Amino acid sequence: MEKGLLVVLSAPSGGGKGTIVKELLARNRNVRLSVSATTRAPRPGEENGVHYFFTTREDFLAQIESGGMLEHAEYVGNLYGTPKAPVDQWREAGIDVILEIEVQGGRQIKSVAPDCVSIFLLPPSLPVLEERLRGRGTEPEETVQKRLLAAREEIPHARDYDYIVVNDTVEEAVENIESILRAERLKSARGEKVIERILTSC
Amino acid sequence: MEKGLLVVLSAPSGGGKGTIVKELLARNRNVRLSVSATTRAPRPGEENGVHYFFTTREDFLAQIESGGMLEHAEYVGNLYGTPKAPVDQWREAGIDVILEIEVQGGRQIKSVAPDCVSIFLLPPSLPVLEERLRGRGTEPEETVQKRLLAAREEIPHARDYDYIVVNDTVEEAVENIESILRAERLKSARGEKVIERILTSC
Repeated sequence: MEKGLLVVLSAPSGGGKGTIVKELLARNRNVRLSVSATTRAPRPGEENGVHYFFTTREDFLAQIESGGMLEHAEYVGNLYGTPKAPVDQWREAGIDVILEIEVQGGRQIKSVAPDCVSIFLLPPSLPVLEERLRGRGTEPEETVQKRLLAAREEIPHARDYDYIVVNDTVEEAVENIESILRAERLKSARGEKVIERILTSC
Repeated sequence: MEKGLLVVLSAPSGGGKGTIVKELLARNRNVRLSVSATTRAPRPGEENGVHYFFTTREDFLAQIESGGMLEHAEYVGNLYGTPKAPVDQWREAGIDVILEIEVQGGRQIKSVAPDCVSIFLLPPSLPVLEERLRGRGTEPEETVQKRLLAAREEIPHARDYDYIVVNDTVEEAVENIESILRAERLKSARGEKVIERILTSC
């Protein structure tokens, strides 16, 4: 059984990450999305183990202490992180695991799991990103401008990722990510077993 | 215009490289096969510029001297090599160029063009390879055994390549190579222009 890939996926806010991950999961039964842990309270409709693993600050800190978190960060008083155990279990079962994560978290993952595959999802242009942010119709103009500014600061970090996928259409972006996963499974560094199997096949 | 990829494709004799390259070219108008130069005489039906560039020993040596050959080797008194100029022209025009080449040549390419993408095509097993070699029905048993022995020595070199593609079915092998080319075009190292374009898009 070939070990599954660990895939770090980052994008500026409004980059359309959610839609693309949803489509990618729908099309590939062998790909799962990692569920984050958080100390914040569940919002209405959020289920434990589905949207987040809801946990106490004490438990969360104990998990960090014991090396049980792949990465973690604090936002407005709440801790967020990626529990290591489910990721490892899925990968051992040959399943590719996607971590939807921001730039800082992506960097932490790369340092503890250098074999991870990192993908940065870019909007086709800043005007398109602005349109998409505004198109939601739910955000006040001030928030849109704040997100645009944040995106402008995040985009240069794409250089630190292995791959850049431009989110022009969902279809094309998903196909590009599928090609990346397929190609990564063919990397010779992952092919030692294949070579052994063929050489001992007579 | 994004520069085309330089793709080194190697396989043990009988690996089915010819069939796969033919199918790959038929399906992808943006991919071309590099034509080798040789000092050997044309065989009946061989066309200059199609099967080989036929040239004199003097011209060939002059091309090596001036840095005009990406790699070269001598077999039974004849020189064979990859002329650099057509490869560069195609790549500048955004076309991916495939070099069908043996292990030694592959190594030479990697040292002069470190940005090349190298793929090693493996048979699914040694018995299948033996079957394929014998299946041609054109080779005496001695040649089949010699090729098998050579394959056994060549297969471990797959480790030096970027990717390993197992030639189980032509369809799957071609799709795998297509995924590799698509993924390689998305490498962030090739994405500097994309980042620049987006950041200056407002």
